[in-house]
Amino acid sequence: MPYRETPATRAARERKREALLDAARTIVAERGFAGASVQALASRAGVSTGGVYSYFPTKADLLVAVFRQAVDVELDAVRAAAAPQGDDPPDGSTVARLSRAVDTFARRALRGPTLAWALLLEPVDPAVDVARLEYRRAYAATFADVVRDGVAAGELPEQDVDVVASALVGAIGEALTGPLSPLAAGGEDGDGAPVDPDARDAVVATILRVCLGAVGARVPAREPT
Amino acid sequence: MPYRETPATRAARERKREALLDAARTIVAERGFAGASVQALASRAGVSTGGVYSYFPTKADLLVAVFRQAVDVELDAVRAAAAPQGDDPPDGSTVARLSRAVDTFARRALRGPTLAWALLLEPVDPAVDVARLEYRRAYAATFADVVRDGVAAGELPEQDVDVVASALVGAIGEALTGPLSPLAAGGEDGDGAPVDPDARDAVVATILRVCLGAVGARVPAREPT
Repeated sequence: MPYRETPATRAARERKREALLDAARTIVAERGFAGASVQALASRAGVSTGGVYSYFPTKADLLVAVFRQAVDVELDAVRAAAAPQGDDPPDGSTVARLSRAVDTFARRALRGPTLAWALLLEPVDPAVDVARLEYRRAYAATFADVVRDGVAAGELPEQDVDVVASALVGAIGEALTGPLSPLAAGGEDGDGAPVDPDARDAVVATILRVCLGAVGARVPAREPT
Repeated sequence: MPYRETPATRAARERKREALLDAARTIVAERGFAGASVQALASRAGVSTGGVYSYFPTKADLLVAVFRQAVDVELDAVRAAAAPQGDDPPDGSTVARLSRAVDTFARRALRGPTLAWALLLEPVDPAVDVARLEYRRAYAATFADVVRDGVAAGELPEQDVDVVASALVGAIGEALTGPLSPLAAGGEDGDGAPVDPDARDAVVATILRVCLGAVGARVPAREPT
């Protein structure tokens, strides 16, 4: 007779799995994927090293699960920011939506630079890269909605919306590379210290001007840096 | 007494190493890193599978060597295109240089989509990702030179040149994701077919407008797509 999971053992397994994901998320936010050894994860979650593999068949599966959980939160925030809002100006809703989306993306990344570095760029198992490509398409779809609405409303010039939206996602992610890199954020050994608030505001403003210019929106005057 | 390499054995080793790199480059251009199994490389280069490891300690070392050799060629082409030229218009050299650089980057990528996909985005060993980050910094430095000269010449508004240059590199790479992806280029299984010339021109024109807008250059009027 095959082993049958009782509701109680199923619930216990689910709790352990969640504890492992929580431990992984905390470690990745503190030290990036590089710090997420199976040993560190097991010890943080109070599971044996071998036990980790009874919840996630491979370490890559665990890293991908952590990645997806963390990026879902970020993507939801950017989607909410990019959605039309009741008090958007009738003839400038595109700029308002794009500004909120870029601001949300960049500011959240700069507030948690180690996590953002891990999610966006840290070299890691190719399985995470596959998930990254998928999420970058989801981000591009979000920006494409804004640009498409802007073109339809006559607020932006005609353009190849999908190519432009991909360019926006690439521009934002790569512009954050410098400030996000553990080297930039915390010296040679990278302590993941949050970026200084003034520098953060300046970077966000630059990225926003880049994006507004990229879609052909009227760009606010630039101030000398 | 330790084994001493004679000039003849050294030359023979060097030839075998080059043959392996050539084989790897051909395979990556045809099928991406995914096609570059040690067995395929060995068979193409006429070396035993075990022999591969006497030239490159690990498969990752070989992939990184192929990556570097291939990207060096691309980077040199973009650097040459971005350099000032004698017949650049005196008051529009920034737009001319940026246009040449973007055109060179994008057109070369679209002509060899499988190689470009492999170099830019294909999920692969993290060692290649580390090299990718390094090269993206080199590309950003090239674009930063153009933007910095443009600001100094009064052709572009003041801006945070390094952040903007990174954004350009991200925008170009990501805008090419669609057209470059094996999915886009050749259906579900990806045959790496070159992108149709008209579509290629349109994508290059879109990417160029994005980049000129991003740096605050005067952007040529957009045509409906």
